Amino acid sequence: MLKEQFEGYKYIEGGVCAAQGFTANGLNCGINPIKEKNDLGIIYSETACNTAAVYTRNKVKGAPIIVTQKHLEKSEGITRAVIVNSKNANTCNPNGEQIAEQTSELVAEELGIKPEEVIVASTGVIGMPIFIEPFKNHMSELVSGLSKEGHTEAVNAIMTTDTVRKEVAVEFKIQGKICHIGGMAKGSGMIHPDMATTLNFITTDAAVSTEMLQKALSDIVKITYNCLSIDGDTSTNDMVSVMANGLAKNNLIEAEGSSYDIFKRALYIVMLHMTKMLAADGEGASKFLECKCMEAPNMESAIAVAKSVIHSPLVKCAMFGGDANCGRILCAIGYAQADIDVTKVCVSLASDAGEILVYKDGAALQFSEEEAAKILAQNEIYININLNQGNVSARAWGCDLTYDYVKINGDYRS
Amino acid sequence: MLKEQFEGYKYIEGGVCAAQGFTANGLNCGINPIKEKNDLGIIYSETACNTAAVYTRNKVKGAPIIVTQKHLEKSEGITRAVIVNSKNANTCNPNGEQIAEQTSELVAEELGIKPEEVIVASTGVIGMPIFIEPFKNHMSELVSGLSKEGHTEAVNAIMTTDTVRKEVAVEFKIQGKICHIGGMAKGSGMIHPDMATTLNFITTDAAVSTEMLQKALSDIVKITYNCLSIDGDTSTNDMVSVMANGLAKNNLIEAEGSSYDIFKRALYIVMLHMTKMLAADGEGASKFLECKCMEAPNMESAIAVAKSVIHSPLVKCAMFGGDANCGRILCAIGYAQADIDVTKVCVSLASDAGEILVYKDGAALQFSEEEAAKILAQNEIYININLNQGNVSARAWGCDLTYDYVKINGDYRS
Repeated sequence: MLKEQFEGYKYIEGGVCAAQGFTANGLNCGINPIKEKNDLGIIYSETACNTAAVYTRNKVKGAPIIVTQKHLEKSEGITRAVIVNSKNANTCNPNGEQIAEQTSELVAEELGIKPEEVIVASTGVIGMPIFIEPFKNHMSELVSGLSKEGHTEAVNAIMTTDTVRKEVAVEFKIQGKICHIGGMAKGSGMIHPDMATTLNFITTDAAVSTEMLQKALSDIVKITYNCLSIDGDTSTNDMVSVMANGLAKNNLIEAEGSSYDIFKRALYIVMLHMTKMLAADGEGASKFLECKCMEAPNMESAIAVAKSVIHSPLVKCAMFGGDANCGRILCAIGYAQADIDVTKVCVSLASDAGEILVYKDGAALQFSEEEAAKILAQNEIYININLNQGNVSARAWGCDLTYDYVKINGDYRS
Repeated sequence: MLKEQFEGYKYIEGGVCAAQGFTANGLNCGINPIKEKNDLGIIYSETACNTAAVYTRNKVKGAPIIVTQKHLEKSEGITRAVIVNSKNANTCNPNGEQIAEQTSELVAEELGIKPEEVIVASTGVIGMPIFIEPFKNHMSELVSGLSKEGHTEAVNAIMTTDTVRKEVAVEFKIQGKICHIGGMAKGSGMIHPDMATTLNFITTDAAVSTEMLQKALSDIVKITYNCLSIDGDTSTNDMVSVMANGLAKNNLIEAEGSSYDIFKRALYIVMLHMTKMLAADGEGASKFLECKCMEAPNMESAIAVAKSVIHSPLVKCAMFGGDANCGRILCAIGYAQADIDVTKVCVSLASDAGEILVYKDGAALQFSEEEAAKILAQNEIYININLNQGNVSARAWGCDLTYDYVKINGDYRS
């Protein structure tokens, strides 16, 4: 159920290399002492890309975020490559921006492009000193190993506490031209995006102007990544970038219309699927949770209610324990910043094992605990809320709160 | 360090019975199947009390909250008794208000007072059917057992997942008259107060008008209970009430001035100490956390920063693990809704074992991990943040996030 089907769009292999002209690679450069674990990744486009990006709204920003913003300004939204490391966030370091700039220069030199055409990103521990040597010593090897198969090595390089690789790609047509879009993402803690999420890189060969790319990205991030909450902590290094190199040869999408809609839907499919993968692999997660808020008076209220329920630690613990505790769900609906009448609310719990109504018209129902237990024993749980006061729907995603979340984050400097 | 000393105020025994004219009692009436555990408590004043209260802002409100609001309106702020049960929140029940009203009538009849002079409160599972019989069958026994020693039985009746009794009392003087104020509170999960907290009952023999009582309560709740976060869930049944019967015979406090200031400080001491007790006994807590935000440009920013850090699941896990992870603290400062310049921030970690500076002027410091580990091995941890951009301070309180929190809340219908 994680991978939703959409007519006219086909899931394909290849991640960030699925689109024409993109290659990638990854390796261990020594930031991570475990030699078998990649810690440096690269994505490269053989031609210039229109580029859009959204960033964390945390006031403490990773140095790579600041440097990338400067690059996109200087290059007027044109990029050719992404360089990303894990294990060190390069955040709260006095020389952070300098290191991020030097890294971009190393990439640019090796690829024969401009430093401002490089998107630079980091993830890992905040406030840990970072040095240029690991980048310098391995840039040549990293670039010379670029290939169409390299997406696997690249995504491996951004996995931190992730237990599964997060990549997806989709094929679709614009004006008869076959287009591709693909992406890779990292999880899996400090996730409560605010206008962006976690590290997330998307590539496409569709031809789209920077302006329309940004518009599509900004719209979709609101109903995908921003509706995801693992633990309520908004990272300092969140970033989503979309690079479009135009090699699919469709007429450049410069305005709204049917071509824009087709592309936007493809971007939605990629971002929706990555969002759901991030939720399912949340730190310590044993269960994927989706909360759908239906018949809301407006989108803001629908999102606020769905996110509030997904974000509640008590709901998350109840789902971990398989307890159909509708009181905790109602409580979280009640404290959502939403314009709603709680006396009209209905709630049901669903999974592959069935669906059960637990709350109707402002009052808890008596239901079969046995049936509820069966439903909640599955590993994909759907909390369906009907507000009965409008016609707008929204979804939010997350996971249960488990012993393993505490273990992962109680351990030394994860 | 939990119990702070204030000149002119003396901690005494007696809880909600410390003030003259107040008695209390508690027993098991059968809502809780464990016969040894009290589930019904009462507080009674032999004379009429001016009364102030604040309530949860959750839109889903327990029926007792609604009924109490109606009572205080009808009685114009005069009350004589509190009746409170645990194990069933009487929330999201179709007949909830009726049960709360009937309970008040039973109390009133037994005590010879008016039903609207009764504050009624409940805590426990939301959406569980509730019946009048347990109240009816035990009201006579409950009332006939009222005594000055009954505060212990009463506080036992509101303990749910609490591991320690939360009561405090203070003696002080107004115009040469000896006054007393005391309170009892319940924890220990679903705590992220919004204009109120958890169940909390305060009694005093000082003579204070309803208006000034409400003013003092509303001011102090902002800097005590509302700066407390155990898990980020705002309960449906939160309530704080203060009853003042005037038996201390000071001149009625009807306006601001030195007498009001003395009383307000006493109320602050009681509420501060209960807040800290609630934090220290948060569900599953192994460590008490206090975050102090100093030199902030304004009170809103100081509170927002302190609360954001206390509320961060990643900071809470790091404190559980004894990891001096200053990056997570900075991250939580960064996403606080506060008007601050992050480049000026300094952070230190302190406990009985010492204090260590971990972050200065926007950059992480290299510090002795050994020393930091010693400091964080204590069970009272102080996170001190200096914003260096003003002269306002605020504190927030909470606890670490542990395996036991997940265990308590993953278990069936706690």
